[in-house]
Amino acid sequence: MESNHNIDMNNINNSFDQYSYNNDIIVTPWEVLGDLEDKTYIKLIEKFGTQAISQELIEKIKKLTGEIHPLIKSQYFFSHRDMDWLLNKYENGEHFYLYTGRGPSGFIHLGHLLPWLFTKYLQDKFGAKLLFQITDDEKFLYNLGATKETISKYTSENILDIIAIGFNPDLTRIIIDTKHIHHLYPIATEIARKITFSTAKAVFGFTNTTNIGMIGFPSIQAAPCFLPSIIEKTPTPVLIPAAIDQDPYWRITRDIATKLGFYKPAQIHSKFLPSLSRDSKMSSSRPETAILTTDEPEIVEKKVLSSFTGGQATISLQKKLGGNADICPVYDYLKYFFDDEKESLERYLRCKSGNLLCGECKSDLVNNTRDFIIEFQRKRDEAKDKVNDFMFE
Amino acid sequence: MESNHNIDMNNINNSFDQYSYNNDIIVTPWEVLGDLEDKTYIKLIEKFGTQAISQELIEKIKKLTGEIHPLIKSQYFFSHRDMDWLLNKYENGEHFYLYTGRGPSGFIHLGHLLPWLFTKYLQDKFGAKLLFQITDDEKFLYNLGATKETISKYTSENILDIIAIGFNPDLTRIIIDTKHIHHLYPIATEIARKITFSTAKAVFGFTNTTNIGMIGFPSIQAAPCFLPSIIEKTPTPVLIPAAIDQDPYWRITRDIATKLGFYKPAQIHSKFLPSLSRDSKMSSSRPETAILTTDEPEIVEKKVLSSFTGGQATISLQKKLGGNADICPVYDYLKYFFDDEKESLERYLRCKSGNLLCGECKSDLVNNTRDFIIEFQRKRDEAKDKVNDFMFE
Repeated sequence: MESNHNIDMNNINNSFDQYSYNNDIIVTPWEVLGDLEDKTYIKLIEKFGTQAISQELIEKIKKLTGEIHPLIKSQYFFSHRDMDWLLNKYENGEHFYLYTGRGPSGFIHLGHLLPWLFTKYLQDKFGAKLLFQITDDEKFLYNLGATKETISKYTSENILDIIAIGFNPDLTRIIIDTKHIHHLYPIATEIARKITFSTAKAVFGFTNTTNIGMIGFPSIQAAPCFLPSIIEKTPTPVLIPAAIDQDPYWRITRDIATKLGFYKPAQIHSKFLPSLSRDSKMSSSRPETAILTTDEPEIVEKKVLSSFTGGQATISLQKKLGGNADICPVYDYLKYFFDDEKESLERYLRCKSGNLLCGECKSDLVNNTRDFIIEFQRKRDEAKDKVNDFMFE
Repeated sequence: MESNHNIDMNNINNSFDQYSYNNDIIVTPWEVLGDLEDKTYIKLIEKFGTQAISQELIEKIKKLTGEIHPLIKSQYFFSHRDMDWLLNKYENGEHFYLYTGRGPSGFIHLGHLLPWLFTKYLQDKFGAKLLFQITDDEKFLYNLGATKETISKYTSENILDIIAIGFNPDLTRIIIDTKHIHHLYPIATEIARKITFSTAKAVFGFTNTTNIGMIGFPSIQAAPCFLPSIIEKTPTPVLIPAAIDQDPYWRITRDIATKLGFYKPAQIHSKFLPSLSRDSKMSSSRPETAILTTDEPEIVEKKVLSSFTGGQATISLQKKLGGNADICPVYDYLKYFFDDEKESLERYLRCKSGNLLCGECKSDLVNNTRDFIIEFQRKRDEAKDKVNDFMFE
């Protein structure tokens, strides 16, 4: 369920007209390329037909949770479908499920963690059950060079990260596609027979050279949207917190949901965490520009110190002109993971005014990230004994 | 795995150029239409690129079984792929699996029974293990009007027929796709990623309006070809006895088998049993022209008495000109099910010479079929207690 750049692209149409803007940004479930600016996300809302998170919706969330989560305040979660409808259902006593997922193509990096941490927050606030799908089949079908052994290894590794997030084991179930296919397949066939090749081609850019497994796969990824209604034996709302690149899956799922007697899954979409080089989103397939949860502390330090920043070429220029926090991944990571709102604003203003040098920010990020990763790795170790508690039956 | 005429054809290309001859015959896994003459089958051998069963192959079979089965002698089984290779493997001590299947779209008719009876014969003669696949998923994906309940009912009903054939419970396992998908899916994904939409389109006639489930399905039907090698933990030859319309599935399976490290499945192809009206193959979707294993004896009698025959319009014309046994379904059914070789030849000559009237043949067929069906229904009843003995784990 994530993008991956070092992959065989033979089976995917490279044109993707509907997601490509001025040939500089491509956003599909398999590829996110280009400059991730605010205007790009505004365009994605238009193009995908989703809704911006309005002040009214924020007030509604605040009414129910008593607060506004920093990732909503900072607009890292910036778009949704039917989140307002879902909250109305909740207010009327209908409990919703959360559903998100992971394509096990590599190790986990900080970019993966933000939606997961937000998902845990929603679970805690709303007491929501969570289905977490591992799309090991998709990764095998998509990457013609991948072996089952490698994907299986990353499946096990990624599950430790998921558990380390701190999801409630009583409310959370991990579904591994190849392991739990017998639960998904009956729903997937119902979904699949409602989706023509024509539709799948338009939404995902499939071509004549796409393999037949990839063509059928969207029905497997859609299945957990309807599984809660089957488990609960009553129509059950579902909210999917995930990065915007996954939206095509839910768009076709929503199109057929009511035909099958289910609610349309609601969604809340995040932006992408930029890579340390800021030329694309963070990706484990380019580990030198991504901070992995499995990195040793000294590797984290090395990566952060080599990071691109919004700073000027020299200290004197920085003091004279000020830095550009708006394009600085170091600033972003501090903002999303470690600074509170006030600290972040202060950092922004000090940078802009030339009173803050990149070295200080990098040093702050190294210290914070090292502590965070050490603690996360401790939880990851503990997770090894908890895997069975989280598995779907 | 059988054809079915009363179905939504929206998702299948009606042209099927590669299987259509002078617009009068169409042979695909979902449709068999046209005049089933000997020359049609010769054309199918050419077009599908299979091999006629040679005298040399017949001698080889005879050497191993001590006899020539009537369905081979009569050329009801008329074509093959690699059957000679398979028998060489057998002679060299490599045991083979049999694999055949059933799409549970209706009740079972006599046309289904011939390949199954022949499969049982092969099982007995070669001590071969048999995988019998029920493609309930395919029937659901293909027939947009079908409900899961109906398909599930036919699945249960058809399994009784399969068991009533008399397969050895120690050597036979029935696989229901939706029930045993977790055994098939890992192999199916390996198969699927080797087959492009382009190939599937050329072989099956898929179009833009075909649903994505149908497009992915060939990988599920191919999976049991390789399951024996996984069960036995060594490359294991497989022989598929089935009607020729299923050949497209095995053609693409054979194309990718060696890439995946498996033997290509061998095949032996049967003709189709004509319907009682002789305008197409027998099909349970036109029950008035098909003798079903679930028919009451009086229904069987009624159907046979209303059958098309090769007889002349009047008794005096029949006596003068003789009948045409070559196009007579009543003659065919007697030949394939009840007459021995000598009886069949005598019947043929008497008919041709005008010394045999249709009434006598119909009467013979009624009596034989009634006895056969009564006995078969008894075995079908007994089968109800044996279902678990035949189920794949």
